Amino acid sequence: MGTDRHPRFGHLSPADLGLFTDRYELTMLRGYRETEHTPESTFSLFFRSLPTDRGYVIAAGLEQAIAYLRELVFGDEQLDHLRKEGFPEAFLRYLAEFEFTGDVRAVPEGTAVFPNEPLLEVTAPIDQAQLFETLLLNQIGFQSLIATKAARMRDVVRRRGADQRLVDFGGRRAHGTDAGVKAARAAYVGGFDGTANEAAGSLFDVPVYGTMAHSWVQSFPSERAAFEAFVDVYGEDSVLLIDTYDTVTGAKTALEVAGERDEAIRGVRLDSGDLASLSQEVRGILPERMDVFVSSGVDEFFLREFFENDGVADGFGPGTSLTTSDDAPTLNPVYKLVAVEADGEMQPSMKLSKGKVTYPGAKRVHRFGDDTFRRDVLARADEEVGGRELLVDVVADGEVVYDFPTVDEIRDRTIQTLERLPEDIRAIENPATYPVDISESLDATAERVQSDLRTEMDL
Amino acid sequence: MGTDRHPRFGHLSPADLGLFTDRYELTMLRGYRETEHTPESTFSLFFRSLPTDRGYVIAAGLEQAIAYLRELVFGDEQLDHLRKEGFPEAFLRYLAEFEFTGDVRAVPEGTAVFPNEPLLEVTAPIDQAQLFETLLLNQIGFQSLIATKAARMRDVVRRRGADQRLVDFGGRRAHGTDAGVKAARAAYVGGFDGTANEAAGSLFDVPVYGTMAHSWVQSFPSERAAFEAFVDVYGEDSVLLIDTYDTVTGAKTALEVAGERDEAIRGVRLDSGDLASLSQEVRGILPERMDVFVSSGVDEFFLREFFENDGVADGFGPGTSLTTSDDAPTLNPVYKLVAVEADGEMQPSMKLSKGKVTYPGAKRVHRFGDDTFRRDVLARADEEVGGRELLVDVVADGEVVYDFPTVDEIRDRTIQTLERLPEDIRAIENPATYPVDISESLDATAERVQSDLRTEMDL
Repeated sequence: MGTDRHPRFGHLSPADLGLFTDRYELTMLRGYRETEHTPESTFSLFFRSLPTDRGYVIAAGLEQAIAYLRELVFGDEQLDHLRKEGFPEAFLRYLAEFEFTGDVRAVPEGTAVFPNEPLLEVTAPIDQAQLFETLLLNQIGFQSLIATKAARMRDVVRRRGADQRLVDFGGRRAHGTDAGVKAARAAYVGGFDGTANEAAGSLFDVPVYGTMAHSWVQSFPSERAAFEAFVDVYGEDSVLLIDTYDTVTGAKTALEVAGERDEAIRGVRLDSGDLASLSQEVRGILPERMDVFVSSGVDEFFLREFFENDGVADGFGPGTSLTTSDDAPTLNPVYKLVAVEADGEMQPSMKLSKGKVTYPGAKRVHRFGDDTFRRDVLARADEEVGGRELLVDVVADGEVVYDFPTVDEIRDRTIQTLERLPEDIRAIENPATYPVDISESLDATAERVQSDLRTEMDL
Repeated sequence: MGTDRHPRFGHLSPADLGLFTDRYELTMLRGYRETEHTPESTFSLFFRSLPTDRGYVIAAGLEQAIAYLRELVFGDEQLDHLRKEGFPEAFLRYLAEFEFTGDVRAVPEGTAVFPNEPLLEVTAPIDQAQLFETLLLNQIGFQSLIATKAARMRDVVRRRGADQRLVDFGGRRAHGTDAGVKAARAAYVGGFDGTANEAAGSLFDVPVYGTMAHSWVQSFPSERAAFEAFVDVYGEDSVLLIDTYDTVTGAKTALEVAGERDEAIRGVRLDSGDLASLSQEVRGILPERMDVFVSSGVDEFFLREFFENDGVADGFGPGTSLTTSDDAPTLNPVYKLVAVEADGEMQPSMKLSKGKVTYPGAKRVHRFGDDTFRRDVLARADEEVGGRELLVDVVADGEVVYDFPTVDEIRDRTIQTLERLPEDIRAIENPATYPVDISESLDATAERVQSDLRTEMDL
């Protein structure tokens, strides 16, 4: 079993982030440098199709993605690792001085996006644009996935004209620590009210909420003693978990403890059983001033059923379903070369791989419709087809030229976006397809590039 | 849109890790301290049921979990955050000096585990044991989920008596950066041969592999020029991606480029189309010495079908399905109080919440069967029922007392585990149920605790 190995932390420090890339990106970078082939290039980040039951995706994660792009470094230890892996000194010197000097255009966070529409486009010498593929996909893909899941839940609540609080409880089931905090941010961006994750609150100005666990209740000689001890410390801020032994008994005990002490307590939480039915019983026991908070298995489908069954609650704590987007755990985003400099000009580029075709060239997305979004047009970046253009300049010549909105501003944008999306696009099952037209000019470009490639390759 | 906000990095530093917990853990910790109620307690980490189509779970993530537990700190900035959130100074001083002084028993990584069996048990004053709930679930739950997914793929390959290379390609689709590197480690632990993620290679001694992307091919005037440039730099180490335009043409061009230069190149990669059929065509074109590597949509179901359709490959690069465990994206682990000190003795504890019952008390797991595992017995920690006991001492009085095995040693354990699990338990669809018996004594304890609780609560 080896000799007294110290447990490995395995936590990525900022100095490790340069290495958060696939080996092939580094292999290609070295190749681009050694063959002195570093043409200007444009890469486009998008998804080819919507995840199951999604009618739209809410873009998120741009702020962190841009911070990574600007602050990425290769630390000395990390360069040592690459040295041991056989990368030559000249290449390591290049990485040690790596700096992004290119341009980024992107869709603001909180914007609805559809298949083939770029969430982000990077234009830079190909080595610079290539390196970030893994990190940009990882970050923007995940936050967009979770913001979308959150927006679906917010929308189910919103459609009832209600404003129940939605709080992310999913840190423990998220895929690792980064997912835990980024999911909390993305959930807020998607319309949630806060998170239970303290680190996320500290990093992203997302409000933090918390109650108590069953272990608190079990650790005392009785449920009553546990409630009394908690109210001793937290007074009117107390939210008591009432399902450890029996939910209805717990509700009565909570009321007695609150009453005896002549203190209003904030409320109670239910975490098991038939929640719609129990919530009604508990609501009947407790006075209006006390809130009923519901957790355990909460997602958009649960919420729809809970309301259909006349459940009553002031707030919900979705967990696993939110932070893993369990019914559709990936957005499958891609980051594809769409244009490359040749003969002094940017030329549209594409591959012909079966089922994986990408529209060539840098693009614009034009959105039509005022109160309600009606359709988008995906167009060449150098044409103007009307409507509202979605991509904005974020980085120019390596410098940020965009005022990043606060999470509250992004959250407002998401809510407004939901209000403007047609209802059938927002359906949580079998949504309708939002029309994304391809501009004539883009279509013609794609035809020409494919036809030229086939001729060249003799296919 | 606010005023010139700098993009927020949002990357968790080690000093942030104390905050990677749910608010309610901190609320309870403060409560435990202020009410001077810090009884010795035992918490058990387990899952209640297997994820869809899983007949077993491979335990993983222990080494990182223990490192977190030992090295967790609350940095000054992090304490400032809690101060702003209203936590009192005395509690912040306590956190600043927080140290784990308890015991941990756990199942070694690479062990097969089943519902209700503890992967880990923590015994410590309740405040200390409580704090780690979120982080332990997050880390062990995720790595075990991915090690299991990886083991399923390794097993499909192994059943054919084959040893094709399996390499994690999923960093870009993982849920954040921590998931990217931990999935790479967990995949290796589960029987993979390596990862594409450079950071994971650096942090965890997992071998790193990489080829090239379509962008390399597209960035050159022709596929041939792209292949030639790559072979110029990498010579016989080159693996060429041949599906950018047409796979069969690409294979022929790759062979010509290799032949012209009188250099053996390592092989080619296929990433689209009907991969079983194309792999046969490509195998027919290329000499034996060149490997065929297959990626795109690879998971255990793909592998089964690929082999059934007589696909030929020397290696595979599973991505999204691996790092998100897409068909079952959570293990739903829980961390429950099972015993608490009262009247100077550890008393078994449980809750009665509907559908969420936990066997009370610290436990042992006994495994029976030599060449083939036959059944387990879940027992009280203080009884001896024969068989091989799975949990080992890892931390005692806050000090590590366990020699952590290397990832290679863990990987060997997983492979041996797969060999000893009955075939019907390893089925990738509708597996049989492995028998986990409850010892008479444990069953009687559970009955007694429940009955006492019902009497006490007048239920």
